[in-house]
Amino acid sequence: MQKSLSVYDSDGSTFAPLVVIELVSETKEEAIAWLLNRVRDKQQDGGAELLVEQLTPGAQGTEKDNPNVYVVGASWQRLLYGAEDVGLFKEFNDGSMRGFTYANKHNFKEFQGDGDGFLSMAECQYIIKHELDNLRAKDEAHVPGYPKMKLYPGKSVIRRMQSKGILVQVFPLHEKEELKRLSFSWFKKIKLSFQPLDDIRHYFGEGMALYFGFLEYFTLALIPMALIGIPYYLFDWEDYDKFTVFAGFNLVWCTVILELWKRLSASLAYGWGTLSRKKAFEEPRPGFHGVLGVNPVTGRAEPLYSNAKRQLRIYLVSVPFVLLCLYLSLYVMMIYFDMEGWALMIHDEEPTFWTGLLLFIPSIIYAVVIEIMNLIYRYAAEFLTGWENHRLESTFQNHLVLKVLVFNFFNCFASLFYIAFVMQDMVLLRQSLATLLITSQILNQIMEAFLPYWLQRRRNKKAHKRMIKTMEDKELPLSEQVKLEADMSTYLGTFDDYLELFLLFGYVSLFSCVYPLAAVLVVLNNVTEVYSDAFKMCKVFKRPFSEPAANIGVWQLAFEAMSVIAVVTNCALIGMSPQVKSYFPESETQLIMWVVGFEHFLLASKFILTFVIPDVPKHIQIKLSRLEFESLEALKKRKMLEASGIPKTDK
Amino acid sequence: MQKSLSVYDSDGSTFAPLVVIELVSETKEEAIAWLLNRVRDKQQDGGAELLVEQLTPGAQGTEKDNPNVYVVGASWQRLLYGAEDVGLFKEFNDGSMRGFTYANKHNFKEFQGDGDGFLSMAECQYIIKHELDNLRAKDEAHVPGYPKMKLYPGKSVIRRMQSKGILVQVFPLHEKEELKRLSFSWFKKIKLSFQPLDDIRHYFGEGMALYFGFLEYFTLALIPMALIGIPYYLFDWEDYDKFTVFAGFNLVWCTVILELWKRLSASLAYGWGTLSRKKAFEEPRPGFHGVLGVNPVTGRAEPLYSNAKRQLRIYLVSVPFVLLCLYLSLYVMMIYFDMEGWALMIHDEEPTFWTGLLLFIPSIIYAVVIEIMNLIYRYAAEFLTGWENHRLESTFQNHLVLKVLVFNFFNCFASLFYIAFVMQDMVLLRQSLATLLITSQILNQIMEAFLPYWLQRRRNKKAHKRMIKTMEDKELPLSEQVKLEADMSTYLGTFDDYLELFLLFGYVSLFSCVYPLAAVLVVLNNVTEVYSDAFKMCKVFKRPFSEPAANIGVWQLAFEAMSVIAVVTNCALIGMSPQVKSYFPESETQLIMWVVGFEHFLLASKFILTFVIPDVPKHIQIKLSRLEFESLEALKKRKMLEASGIPKTDK
Repeated sequence: MQKSLSVYDSDGSTFAPLVVIELVSETKEEAIAWLLNRVRDKQQDGGAELLVEQLTPGAQGTEKDNPNVYVVGASWQRLLYGAEDVGLFKEFNDGSMRGFTYANKHNFKEFQGDGDGFLSMAECQYIIKHELDNLRAKDEAHVPGYPKMKLYPGKSVIRRMQSKGILVQVFPLHEKEELKRLSFSWFKKIKLSFQPLDDIRHYFGEGMALYFGFLEYFTLALIPMALIGIPYYLFDWEDYDKFTVFAGFNLVWCTVILELWKRLSASLAYGWGTLSRKKAFEEPRPGFHGVLGVNPVTGRAEPLYSNAKRQLRIYLVSVPFVLLCLYLSLYVMMIYFDMEGWALMIHDEEPTFWTGLLLFIPSIIYAVVIEIMNLIYRYAAEFLTGWENHRLESTFQNHLVLKVLVFNFFNCFASLFYIAFVMQDMVLLRQSLATLLITSQILNQIMEAFLPYWLQRRRNKKAHKRMIKTMEDKELPLSEQVKLEADMSTYLGTFDDYLELFLLFGYVSLFSCVYPLAAVLVVLNNVTEVYSDAFKMCKVFKRPFSEPAANIGVWQLAFEAMSVIAVVTNCALIGMSPQVKSYFPESETQLIMWVVGFEHFLLASKFILTFVIPDVPKHIQIKLSRLEFESLEALKKRKMLEASGIPKTDK
Repeated sequence: MQKSLSVYDSDGSTFAPLVVIELVSETKEEAIAWLLNRVRDKQQDGGAELLVEQLTPGAQGTEKDNPNVYVVGASWQRLLYGAEDVGLFKEFNDGSMRGFTYANKHNFKEFQGDGDGFLSMAECQYIIKHELDNLRAKDEAHVPGYPKMKLYPGKSVIRRMQSKGILVQVFPLHEKEELKRLSFSWFKKIKLSFQPLDDIRHYFGEGMALYFGFLEYFTLALIPMALIGIPYYLFDWEDYDKFTVFAGFNLVWCTVILELWKRLSASLAYGWGTLSRKKAFEEPRPGFHGVLGVNPVTGRAEPLYSNAKRQLRIYLVSVPFVLLCLYLSLYVMMIYFDMEGWALMIHDEEPTFWTGLLLFIPSIIYAVVIEIMNLIYRYAAEFLTGWENHRLESTFQNHLVLKVLVFNFFNCFASLFYIAFVMQDMVLLRQSLATLLITSQILNQIMEAFLPYWLQRRRNKKAHKRMIKTMEDKELPLSEQVKLEADMSTYLGTFDDYLELFLLFGYVSLFSCVYPLAAVLVVLNNVTEVYSDAFKMCKVFKRPFSEPAANIGVWQLAFEAMSVIAVVTNCALIGMSPQVKSYFPESETQLIMWVVGFEHFLLASKFILTFVIPDVPKHIQIKLSRLEFESLEALKKRKMLEASGIPKTDK
């Protein structure tokens, strides 16, 4: 960890600033003093025992700057205790991954001297965030100076101040040197190579590294498909009934890659120490509100919200709203088909080059409208899910993901299903697929990386220029760095990135047999996606807090659901191909029975395969069982020693 | 626990005998002396610290009696320590279930005085079995007196002696008083009532109680089906195309009852303290053999067997064997259809009452042949799975269950599927189903309870008579009781009982829409099954060691797989009904598309339902999270105390 940036704490000694806390500029003095005291207090007194100082404005400091910006750090010892608190796993002397304990610290592989450099800066920042979030009210009834900002014993102080708007933001600082090195090896090098996943994990945490790992894996997995797709495209362009083999390949492919990813992600997570890490007890999310009651699990006073009320909100408001949106999306689809028919009519009346181009216009407009609808719906879904008032962040996320997935799936694929199975027009299907895919890719890249970059550039053009220059060239005073980073946009998590991959996976696995170039396009898109995502993480956004993750979570399930739908769709497409139909010239019934039988067989094999392939590779399973065995043995030994100390003659 | 039976241990004090160990009569003196010493040795010296005495032959003792019969017991204190070792869960003062610890013993609800009566006799016996199994070789190279009976450090002594045949059996003793009370409330009372599941669990352990709980639940769940079935049978006997509604009911029924059972079984297991109990580290099964190597998990010397070799055995021998058996079963089925045709021909030529009866003969013969084939295959499967040389008992069981299930499913249902979907003869289907069901039920009841009972009765008619009389009337000397029980048959586990339920579930869920009386027959069968199973457990078999179980294990999966097959089958039956066909008079294709669409919708709903319904009821989830939360809090507190003791000034 860099120690070049440092501020003086109240004792006069220096500490490395890790995290920035920004309060609104008009915050009352007493609230600030109280908060700082609580952060500094010893742990046995209920404090966080961290180091915190106000940021002294730099040379360029103006009147307009917010004075209430604080930097937080901690002593190395405090951080090591914190690492034990959050349950960090580190490599042990014998090569296995074990939960770090302070008492045992010298037995960990990379622990040298007093432990400086043992924790990465991202880990330190995660620990500090954890300790800040766990700073709980004692007997204060409210935040000093704000009688309306109620507190009760055990309530997280930071969360309350954040949800009430006094606390603007808490964010970790970038490390200039590290970032420079990471950017270089990640996206500035032109050489074709794997991404530096370990470095990404080191800087951004496991959640982010798993996303980039998945993106890379997905791209590599698509390459065989793309390679098969190119000759298909080149030589069989008009012979679209030859897609049966391709559809069969599709089926096997999407099952196998998802299973293999599970194993790969388990390997990665084991190496990063998150695989067997226990989840911390989940606190209510900041936005959760309700009547103060007693939590049956913790026995603590806490706001409670009746489950029945939440169910009513979900079933009487959210579900109808989602259905209405689906209906709207269907309506827009019908308008698209009208436009399509109209364009075709014009082209038929007067077939020139320009009317030929006109044929693509409806699809392009439709693709743009789809993207806009997805975007609007995304905000609506977030608002609705917030209003449903879920207690835990994880439940909130599940409901949000479900809402967004259902709508996006419908919105993006309904027209393709309609063309494929109702109109049965394979030429139009291919054309729509190509237009949708290309347009949405271009729009996405613009919306996601270049638009925020450009906006930010415009917003503080001067400051930005200076940052770019100084971040790369010479030292920048701490206050300047903090000010610059505070103004950067906040990265909202991997949700949108995964969603995009999910839709791309859908295009490829559902319909690429009709348009084999789809895989090629997605590979190209993913390669640029790696670069644009890496660029936005390093240059556009504030550094996010690292998020420990053992797998890609609910997305694994979403991708698996998509692969089941892909089996059904591909079987139906195979059944509709003239090639297969020619085998059953007299009886359509028999054809359908065979296709349905084949589909059931495939679905059954898929489930058996999922069941048979172990989710964790054998060598990691052995390591995990060894740890478990050792802890059992240690427990047994301890008990036996205790037992032998007690006289046993009193039968 | 009864203390009426007691023997004197070497110190002259008495102990209650719990478990019997029988060695072959010609065992060498030194081996016996060594074994007894190891059993008696203190735990810190690697012994089991149990009490063990040779059984003194009673008055009727003859020369022929085996003298090497030993009874094992333990002091209360030893048993309480053992309860902690095996991880027993007991009710805590606050009503929650917690892992028992000796140090904390007075905080458990039923702990009074010195703890006498805190553990049930079944629990004590389970603890003793666990301690005996965990008696491990130290530096002995072989069993004294038997140079060929190799040992190595860490090898379970009892398992080695058992697999080498010196140790004939280890079994727990019955409790006469308890057994009498249990029998009365279980099956001697004529009053209709629920089974005394808690008492069954108390006497036979959780695994057995869950089986009887499932049997009872399954029977109750069938009652609505039986009630609907009777009017169907009475009024629509020949109108078999009215079964659509019934098939629809079937679909919903089999999904819902399996989901609800999961919740019920979680409630039962929570109350019995097995739900959150951690599984002990699994030892290799007694029959496992291989070359001595180092186990990568435990680091101990242990026989290893190459996985590749095992896979070869599985894929080159077992799989072809199973396929051959399936082919044979198919062949027998074809013979059955020939016989059926021949009987029909005779009846058509000369239709009398006797030739009418003749129509049922082929089905009855076929049902008997099926049962015989199942039985032979069962032994073959057990032999083959043993020969595959699986290291763990659980893997062995999984492979055995898979082999047996596939064959039994095929053997029992292939002819029905053939009649339903190839011959499409609903009258024959109903007739076959009825004959199969009734014949197999009668055969099963005979094979399972009355045959062993009769065999045993014949084998030692005199001894048995005496036992029946004395077991119920007056005290019997210990040596007599041990001798009688040692001669009883050994109960081989719940496998066959579950298998029978599985097949019955299949008959009902797959085809009961064609023969609505099936549910009624199964209900009747299950009611008698409860009585015959209860009778065989109490009167025919040796007491089995109790087996802690949190659920019905692999059987839940098997029943769920069957319910998926039931959805497909019922949809196909609905599609074939004239009633449904009449809706699509012109197009068969459209009919099939609708049925397939409906089936996919049902399968999807089924999976969503499985996902949405929580497997553990809410109130138990809250209790479990509270325990977890408390242990986390306790850990945190302990760490904070430790941390505050260490000076923190050395930054």
